[in-house]
Amino acid sequence: MTDYTPTPEDKFSFGLWTVGWQGTDVFGPSTRDLLDPVEATYRLAELGAAAVTFHDDDLLPDEDQRDSVLEKFEKALAETGLAVEMVTTNLFSAPVFKEGALTANNRDVRRYALAKVLRNVDLAASLGAKTFVLWGGREGAEHGAAKDVQAALDRYKEALDLLCAYVKDQGYDIRFALEPKPNEPRGDILLPTIGHAIALINELDDPSMVGLNPEVGHEEMAGLNFAQGISQALWHDKLFHVDLNGQHGPRFDQDLRFGAGNLRGAFWTVDALLGAGTGKAYDGYVHFDFKPPRAEAMDGVWESARGCMRNYLMLRERVQAFRADPDVVAALEAAEVGTLGTPTLAEGESLADLRAATYDVEGLGARSVGLEALDQLALEHLLGAR
Amino acid sequence: MTDYTPTPEDKFSFGLWTVGWQGTDVFGPSTRDLLDPVEATYRLAELGAAAVTFHDDDLLPDEDQRDSVLEKFEKALAETGLAVEMVTTNLFSAPVFKEGALTANNRDVRRYALAKVLRNVDLAASLGAKTFVLWGGREGAEHGAAKDVQAALDRYKEALDLLCAYVKDQGYDIRFALEPKPNEPRGDILLPTIGHAIALINELDDPSMVGLNPEVGHEEMAGLNFAQGISQALWHDKLFHVDLNGQHGPRFDQDLRFGAGNLRGAFWTVDALLGAGTGKAYDGYVHFDFKPPRAEAMDGVWESARGCMRNYLMLRERVQAFRADPDVVAALEAAEVGTLGTPTLAEGESLADLRAATYDVEGLGARSVGLEALDQLALEHLLGAR
Amino acid sequence: MTDYTPTPEDKFSFGLWTVGWQGTDVFGPSTRDLLDPVEATYRLAELGAAAVTFHDDDLLPDEDQRDSVLEKFEKALAETGLAVEMVTTNLFSAPVFKEGALTANNRDVRRYALAKVLRNVDLAASLGAKTFVLWGGREGAEHGAAKDVQAALDRYKEALDLLCAYVKDQGYDIRFALEPKPNEPRGDILLPTIGHAIALINELDDPSMVGLNPEVGHEEMAGLNFAQGISQALWHDKLFHVDLNGQHGPRFDQDLRFGAGNLRGAFWTVDALLGAGTGKAYDGYVHFDFKPPRAEAMDGVWESARGCMRNYLMLRERVQAFRADPDVVAALEAAEVGTLGTPTLAEGESLADLRAATYDVEGLGARSVGLEALDQLALEHLLGAR
Amino acid sequence: MTDYTPTPEDKFSFGLWTVGWQGTDVFGPSTRDLLDPVEATYRLAELGAAAVTFHDDDLLPDEDQRDSVLEKFEKALAETGLAVEMVTTNLFSAPVFKEGALTANNRDVRRYALAKVLRNVDLAASLGAKTFVLWGGREGAEHGAAKDVQAALDRYKEALDLLCAYVKDQGYDIRFALEPKPNEPRGDILLPTIGHAIALINELDDPSMVGLNPEVGHEEMAGLNFAQGISQALWHDKLFHVDLNGQHGPRFDQDLRFGAGNLRGAFWTVDALLGAGTGKAYDGYVHFDFKPPRAEAMDGVWESARGCMRNYLMLRERVQAFRADPDVVAALEAAEVGTLGTPTLAEGESLADLRAATYDVEGLGARSVGLEALDQLALEHLLGAR
Repeated sequence: MTDYTPTPEDKFSFGLWTVGWQGTDVFGPSTRDLLDPVEATYRLAELGAAAVTFHDDDLLPDEDQRDSVLEKFEKALAETGLAVEMVTTNLFSAPVFKEGALTANNRDVRRYALAKVLRNVDLAASLGAKTFVLWGGREGAEHGAAKDVQAALDRYKEALDLLCAYVKDQGYDIRFALEPKPNEPRGDILLPTIGHAIALINELDDPSMVGLNPEVGHEEMAGLNFAQGISQALWHDKLFHVDLNGQHGPRFDQDLRFGAGNLRGAFWTVDALLGAGTGKAYDGYVHFDFKPPRAEAMDGVWESARGCMRNYLMLRERVQAFRADPDVVAALEAAEVGTLGTPTLAEGESLADLRAATYDVEGLGARSVGLEALDQLALEHLLGAR
Repeated sequence: MTDYTPTPEDKFSFGLWTVGWQGTDVFGPSTRDLLDPVEATYRLAELGAAAVTFHDDDLLPDEDQRDSVLEKFEKALAETGLAVEMVTTNLFSAPVFKEGALTANNRDVRRYALAKVLRNVDLAASLGAKTFVLWGGREGAEHGAAKDVQAALDRYKEALDLLCAYVKDQGYDIRFALEPKPNEPRGDILLPTIGHAIALINELDDPSMVGLNPEVGHEEMAGLNFAQGISQALWHDKLFHVDLNGQHGPRFDQDLRFGAGNLRGAFWTVDALLGAGTGKAYDGYVHFDFKPPRAEAMDGVWESARGCMRNYLMLRERVQAFRADPDVVAALEAAEVGTLGTPTLAEGESLADLRAATYDVEGLGARSVGLEALDQLALEHLLGAR
Repeated sequence: MTDYTPTPEDKFSFGLWTVGWQGTDVFGPSTRDLLDPVEATYRLAELGAAAVTFHDDDLLPDEDQRDSVLEKFEKALAETGLAVEMVTTNLFSAPVFKEGALTANNRDVRRYALAKVLRNVDLAASLGAKTFVLWGGREGAEHGAAKDVQAALDRYKEALDLLCAYVKDQGYDIRFALEPKPNEPRGDILLPTIGHAIALINELDDPSMVGLNPEVGHEEMAGLNFAQGISQALWHDKLFHVDLNGQHGPRFDQDLRFGAGNLRGAFWTVDALLGAGTGKAYDGYVHFDFKPPRAEAMDGVWESARGCMRNYLMLRERVQAFRADPDVVAALEAAEVGTLGTPTLAEGESLADLRAATYDVEGLGARSVGLEALDQLALEHLLGAR
Repeated sequence: MTDYTPTPEDKFSFGLWTVGWQGTDVFGPSTRDLLDPVEATYRLAELGAAAVTFHDDDLLPDEDQRDSVLEKFEKALAETGLAVEMVTTNLFSAPVFKEGALTANNRDVRRYALAKVLRNVDLAASLGAKTFVLWGGREGAEHGAAKDVQAALDRYKEALDLLCAYVKDQGYDIRFALEPKPNEPRGDILLPTIGHAIALINELDDPSMVGLNPEVGHEEMAGLNFAQGISQALWHDKLFHVDLNGQHGPRFDQDLRFGAGNLRGAFWTVDALLGAGTGKAYDGYVHFDFKPPRAEAMDGVWESARGCMRNYLMLRERVQAFRADPDVVAALEAAEVGTLGTPTLAEGESLADLRAATYDVEGLGARSVGLEALDQLALEHLLGAR
């Protein structure tokens, strides 16, 4: 039986807010004590993680203790060898952001939010993080007239352009990654999907500096196929980072550990990240953004974190076996999956040529596509039955 | 009581396939006789429409009768004054397209599909249509390995680039509009939302020639806010056309008449089309893409078509009254909705200035946002209670 | 213009937890100060409510102050004339209930939960409440093996049988009402819909003592039609109470004010409560269970509460006008809606007679059903356009 | 590697309409030729099925050939040893049923529908089927006023009472099974979930004769947990039959082969059918109700049918291994799953005793529930990794 123990080469990364979530929800207060983020760092290293990430407020909620906490945190990084690969700003918890942050109707809120991000970008640079995530959880509205969407996109663009310019001015080696989400906590959130965020990025002064941090559950809350979504993001060279977790379709944001929820989706997600059946692959950290269920005590928190990595390793093994299986190669060929790489119009051919050709429309309509056979092979690899 | 009788100035347009839908679904055959598209054209004119649209196969299913049908159709257009404002190609019904058309794994299918579109573009041009819609209903897959998404996007781009080049070569005054949909009839369809389609367009050789034809129900099937989506499309200058209908959230594609389904969403949709609370407005045809329920006989078909237009006119009246109401203007001001148009950074201000400023974080957290009051005004206008 | 000011005859009732919600959610802490429940009582009376309801912990979070708070609360009731029409127990906030309450795997938790309910039933009786609601928000699981569903239903039945026996023993004039919900905060909640709860009730020792308290948003989170659901509950004589609010389909529990969300659904909900088009009507309190959005300050809280009642009154007016309109009566007749009340088999007729009869299958297949015309009338009444 | 070849002891059963589906949907005509149901019977036997099922119109669309087809079909049953374990009536395809069948507004339609069922019950009895399924796919409405729900439930009850009385009169050994579905093809279907159908059954003259035939996809279209649903049905002794297939949450009815779609849900479904972690188990036929994707040719049809059975066998093996694993037994004990079987009130204990007891509320709030650890074991068994 394979050993699924993670190593730093696997590039697993955890948000400090994941294992640190205390269980507060709309229906009840916290069920777990505060977890010291420095302690969490040591513990995640023991479990096999390669990096940690955080929101400013996760690590440094208290301004008075900023320096001493940072000192202890950097000591922990040094001792464990963990990297800080990504940093993000909490623009959604404090009441000041209750109606939005970078796109709040109130201009002072927008200014305060931007200042908070800038300060945090400096911190990210000082810790060597190369990715800076922006999740606009409160950017949106419950009702139609509450937000001028076009003006809000103007402000989103303004903020991102300013941030990119700042990073260039400072000479930081940092790229930004937007995290889309359709709703919750706001009724409708701006940039609700991978697609909407890429569309915005193309309007920026320097689109090359901004990409995405898609989250499994966020896309699945809209009923969208996550593997398909990140494949499109890769096609646009926009998959800068990723948030893996689990979800059961359109409902509240469950943030289950990776593997729980839509398991077949998780298999195809790993396949897409590896670029196993296609052109471009993801080469960044494998980042988990989940919430250990509120019912769990601390033993469950660590079990949940351990499970994220184990499940990724098991799925990776199965994806690799699937792609290497000669029966699969034959089935892919039977299904003509690879021929989609061939241009529709031949080199040198004209549209008039194409139109003049004859096609066996009836025969093509009756052809075998072989996709159920191919998918059954995938399912059997996923189940470890081949 | 206002008269809600449509006039050509309202620019209402109908797909011939809407009133022509015979009721065939997965669970049963047709319940209505074939409706002659030429007869439908006369009838829609009587009801107050300004234009019709069609798929090639709606109007011209039979090659042998192509010329005679076209002659009768053009006579009907001339007699009624109706325009053909948009034409589209059926790339989803014939068995040859069962596994996709422009992105089918099989190359001959892709070639045949492209040829079918080209021929239809010629027809569109000859009839004076300025918009050519592409809905890729069969472009997608049920399972992960069945489609190389990156290769499929390459082929989508190839096809669109070829089509744009052709239109330019021919000197046609035509723009293309992509119609996104998340699923049904395929398990997952490529370009599932407004955002994903705009993202693709930005990768084309000439993005200016391609925009969107979003459909209310298609976005709402993903739980997305349609008004917000088309506002983003307008912001990108990509709302080339629109498909209005009704839907009840994530479930099968209902294609209810406009107004049925999510009524508050319909109110904000009209508000967004009018650009009533923002910058850019839509100035194209108001196009209905619905299916009269299968249970209805022909009387219900026409009642359903009539209702689409009436409901639009009633909602337009209420939107205009809402935006003109001084109480609403005051509520918008109280909610600071308009200040979102003001740049976050002042002219000439530096980021250092912004960071050096002090903010009343507690006061801002406690401020009144006034959005429930604003929305209640909207609801009362919608209900005709003000 | 009609005056939509509520009066006690309208029987509007509010949970103290609704206006008292401070805005804590998964993504941020409270944004509003604690609202004194006694103050809330006075304020709701001013707004026109006829009654209040509460969870034990809403009113009496602090055991030491129980007597003094109760004294002040009863004074407020006496001065305002408000009734306490319903009481419920908080079995979901405290960490002890993190894995369930009446169906927790841990037996001591179940015992503690039952004792908490019993104590609260005594309080309800002392305050004259006739309805006791049970919402099992934490009764459920995230994963398959976590809960033996059959054993959990045994425990649900045990608890309800014990509670009913207790009420009878004490001679209290109280009935229980179960509140179904499909998910959130648990991954899957037991008794997820109106139907599942009625099914359970039929297995109790005395089914007559237990009915339902369905909530608009909870059924709509499952994509179900609320009006249809409460109509079935009425048919079973099980609509003991109701929770009105607003929701946008399958997503997180939004608890919008009544009227916001699915507006056409709200119209049909009022129609169903009034029994306007059918046999049995609801005659209990019109209870609102909503959350003023977290972004609002206290002005928005009261505006939201005011809107719930106003919207109900506006919708009631429109429903009554719809049902009284002679054109609607004619359309209902054309659609044969009323003939569904006629038994399919005639008095004295045998099945053999029915089978021997001949039916004009083709003619019936082609008949007009007239439902689009009928629905358009409903929509125009809803819009205040007739 | 285990051999997953089905045998008759596995009691696999297929609807003739599954492999016989020709691919007609809302967006296109059939892609596959008509499959002779007699040929399908032979072929399913070869694949390892134990039984077949059908709608009257699947087998006997043509009255003139009724006797000759029945003769060939009975010969096929005799030669293959296949049973006809269930029969059902098509009350949804013919235009006559466009607005409903047993609950149509039109009384003649209701009478014709009832006569069609009765005739088919005779056929079922003659073929030895013990289960008679009723799926009311057209029983419902698109709009609020279109259906008097209470009258419709009266008619549903009338029809079921008449059918049960007829079966008793004739001495047939047949029970009825209702198949719930929330929507599609109608906007909202009566008896939308398992729960609503059980609730109705309890109002019948003889509830013992009517149970359920729940379908995986139908419950998952409402976001409900299928395993939890059938566990409740078993608790009520109402799981008379089952329809296994695959679905991706709230969207159109996908009818994927079993195992495709929600794979973890499929694992827990098999667990629930086996009664592996609880009291009552299902002992009927394992019936597949799926649609081979429209893109497939006949090779894909049979591959899809084969996959249903293979996936069930693989999942059954994993469920049995999971339940037999000593680590799982220990984890279940740690999670106190089994103690839910112990009554909350001890034998002879009074409620006063229970209330007088003291509870370590803080300690219980902090306890380990061990559910992530338990679920991780389940996931690893599912993946074949233990």
